[in-house]
Amino acid sequence: MAEEKLPTRAQDFSEWYNQLVLKAQLADYAPVRGCMIVRPYGWALWENIQQALDRRFKATGHQNVAFPLLIPRSFIDKEKHHVEGFSPELAVVTIGGGEELAEPLVIRPTSETIIGHMWSKWIQSYRDLPVLMNQWNSVVRWELRTKLFLRTLEFYWQEGHTAHATREEAEAETRQMLDIYTDFAVKDAAIPVIPGKKSDAEKFAGADTTFSIEAMMSDGKALQSGTSHFLGQNFAQAFEVRYLDQNGQLQHCWTTSWGLSTRMIGAIIMVHGDDQGLVLPPKLAPYQAVIVPIFKTDEEKTVVLETARKLKAELAKADIRVTLDEREGQSPGWKFNDWEMRGVPLRIELGPKDVAKQAAVLARRDRPGREGKISVSLADLPSTVERLLAEIQQSLHDKALAFRKSNTHDATTYEDLKKAVENGFALSFWCGSTDCEAKIKEETRATMRCIPLEQPGGSGTCVACGKPSAERAIFGRAY
Amino acid sequence: MAEEKLPTRAQDFSEWYNQLVLKAQLADYAPVRGCMIVRPYGWALWENIQQALDRRFKATGHQNVAFPLLIPRSFIDKEKHHVEGFSPELAVVTIGGGEELAEPLVIRPTSETIIGHMWSKWIQSYRDLPVLMNQWNSVVRWELRTKLFLRTLEFYWQEGHTAHATREEAEAETRQMLDIYTDFAVKDAAIPVIPGKKSDAEKFAGADTTFSIEAMMSDGKALQSGTSHFLGQNFAQAFEVRYLDQNGQLQHCWTTSWGLSTRMIGAIIMVHGDDQGLVLPPKLAPYQAVIVPIFKTDEEKTVVLETARKLKAELAKADIRVTLDEREGQSPGWKFNDWEMRGVPLRIELGPKDVAKQAAVLARRDRPGREGKISVSLADLPSTVERLLAEIQQSLHDKALAFRKSNTHDATTYEDLKKAVENGFALSFWCGSTDCEAKIKEETRATMRCIPLEQPGGSGTCVACGKPSAERAIFGRAY
Repeated sequence: MAEEKLPTRAQDFSEWYNQLVLKAQLADYAPVRGCMIVRPYGWALWENIQQALDRRFKATGHQNVAFPLLIPRSFIDKEKHHVEGFSPELAVVTIGGGEELAEPLVIRPTSETIIGHMWSKWIQSYRDLPVLMNQWNSVVRWELRTKLFLRTLEFYWQEGHTAHATREEAEAETRQMLDIYTDFAVKDAAIPVIPGKKSDAEKFAGADTTFSIEAMMSDGKALQSGTSHFLGQNFAQAFEVRYLDQNGQLQHCWTTSWGLSTRMIGAIIMVHGDDQGLVLPPKLAPYQAVIVPIFKTDEEKTVVLETARKLKAELAKADIRVTLDEREGQSPGWKFNDWEMRGVPLRIELGPKDVAKQAAVLARRDRPGREGKISVSLADLPSTVERLLAEIQQSLHDKALAFRKSNTHDATTYEDLKKAVENGFALSFWCGSTDCEAKIKEETRATMRCIPLEQPGGSGTCVACGKPSAERAIFGRAY
Repeated sequence: MAEEKLPTRAQDFSEWYNQLVLKAQLADYAPVRGCMIVRPYGWALWENIQQALDRRFKATGHQNVAFPLLIPRSFIDKEKHHVEGFSPELAVVTIGGGEELAEPLVIRPTSETIIGHMWSKWIQSYRDLPVLMNQWNSVVRWELRTKLFLRTLEFYWQEGHTAHATREEAEAETRQMLDIYTDFAVKDAAIPVIPGKKSDAEKFAGADTTFSIEAMMSDGKALQSGTSHFLGQNFAQAFEVRYLDQNGQLQHCWTTSWGLSTRMIGAIIMVHGDDQGLVLPPKLAPYQAVIVPIFKTDEEKTVVLETARKLKAELAKADIRVTLDEREGQSPGWKFNDWEMRGVPLRIELGPKDVAKQAAVLARRDRPGREGKISVSLADLPSTVERLLAEIQQSLHDKALAFRKSNTHDATTYEDLKKAVENGFALSFWCGSTDCEAKIKEETRATMRCIPLEQPGGSGTCVACGKPSAERAIFGRAY
């Protein structure tokens, strides 16, 4: 498959993405419109994302659970904004065991409703709070325009749900989880993200406030990469989630929810990938290093493979995720291209001459050509690999941050904003009105991505209407 | 919740089970009939089961993937036995995004069909084989009589799917996975199981041969606890899964599938549990040890909690899953009962007198009363805990094996069989005919559980019809 070349990103970014996902065997189209199959290489990447997040969730006291995928249709109707937002997107089960169901069931689009229903049974007293839960699952939303990983009918994610005694605690939780997403994106996915607040128009259906992390793809467009919602008492009131406080008074709980999905894989592809294919951050890459053996004669093959296998065992012992490409019938050059396309951070080339001098050639995926190649003695290999993986991780992040900075413009006039969102972000004062937001969207196709938590300070005038404004917002065209 | 006593197993085994699942907060009933919510304690147990199996799957070359939960209805019809077996149990989605679907979709009851469909695209040559895949997910089967963990409309499991070039390889894979299930059950769940072959009447809809592991619950009934299917070329023919062999000839693949589900949690409850509650095998227990602090005055509390927290940190450092019960407002006695009910293998009691002599009292869950209690110096605690956990693990297995042996009878006559299956297994010669199997089932409510792979040898006459028979089979009443 590696023979057919990808289109370059400059030629057709969207087609470069679609073909890369297929060629790298991350995912494939399912026989049901808009659904995807996540193939082993894609799922291994997702498993690493899961572990990196799950560790953080558990360290902050959250416990995993599993709520059913079938929800009574009537539950969706109980929270007035929730039903408006999700009704058009539901997949409905009307037949079970050969019979028409008395009440239709929906496949969860998200689980606030069924969780609220159960919390109303489980939570009685302040002693039962906080409740800190998370689940790893898939949900179904009937999207019309789909794209692998970015928007599919069924997608994989985690959904965290928590209940608290006070508004302050729930707000702190919402922010804590946003911080965790930011920390994960920056440190593990090497993606600099902007944490901030969404507008009322773009918030979750049923939330008081939605926060998100926003990333810039290498075509300058934005991708919302994780969200954390402060749900106020909306769902607690709809489902009667109440507790007896220390004074014996019945109170409604304050709840939150937060989710990060397989979209993150799309972000990793579009932030780090180049015209040769994927470039995976070492911390999440299914294979951090690949050994490609080089030989011509059978004798060379014996010697090279023997050393390569030893090397593989040594690297694995040092907790490096390594594979040895022993595929028959393919040239080393073909293998180089194949693993480049699949984004393995480090390639280790080993031929008879290398074995003779007890060395190997290391090639960095993030620095193509000779520049990224060094010869390393076999004795130093594990420590050098470890060092280089850390360097690549940092370098990917720094490159993405520099790219975002150079494509983010302080746009003070509407003309500036229009120009900025052609291929990047505009950071502009915004009065906060839905009208201005809608006008910008209609006229520039850019949406208000978020009001960054980190504000440079000062005040100015709204980029759209000129009214005095206290906060700057990020505008950009988005996936 | 621990105040209300469970019924004893002798009084009402079924009710003991139902109440225990709820009281131990392993699971709860969902608002949709027959569905369950797996609560944090139950899910933590399942996560440990997942890790123990996933490790074994990956060590034998399998890779995890994710296929969609929605399958076109027409796929189910393509394999003639599959459609017969699964049609009555389907949940059907007829509406998506507010519109009637042109073709109804089913929620996967299992994934052979959609995987076969995709393999026909992915597999071209013998070089692509074997394909060794597994997925962790949930499936939906519209069961009429349900029971938490044992039989629910939606249940959690892994489904492995593999494709091979030859019959021999696929048969070897089927047996390898059965061995892995056996190894897991014996070593991790401390459940002695009988691996064997199912009858044609009980095999998977679409399989040539089904193997299972069968366990005896502590009421003498059988629970099928994992299955491995040799699917022959049935699905490969239905979905045209073919490969070019080394001679350039197009051949159908040979495929297998194998699954183990949250039923295993039911097995753990019913094999090891006692009248006080759960007894969890240390290798899978969410908490292997719980520290219960004992104090009266505030001064004692300070001293005891300080030592307890240190102890917890030390045990955690030794990779022991430990919790410290700091709940306010509950007496140590109440906590003892609560953790006993929840089956934590070791309780560590720590009071001011213990702290004074730098010791703690260890109580084994599997040996109630004074017999299971010892005082251990704090310095020796981590190593003693490790040793005791290993002892408990072995002891649970041995007890279950002894129980099964004493309740399994070599039944040579039909009368013997009838008596044996009243509260255990009958091991009897069976001619292999579906008629004899059906007669036994109708007259005794016992089913042919499996023909054990391990046969004592010799030959005899069928327990039902008297015809010469070469193999012995296990008969028992089953969940």
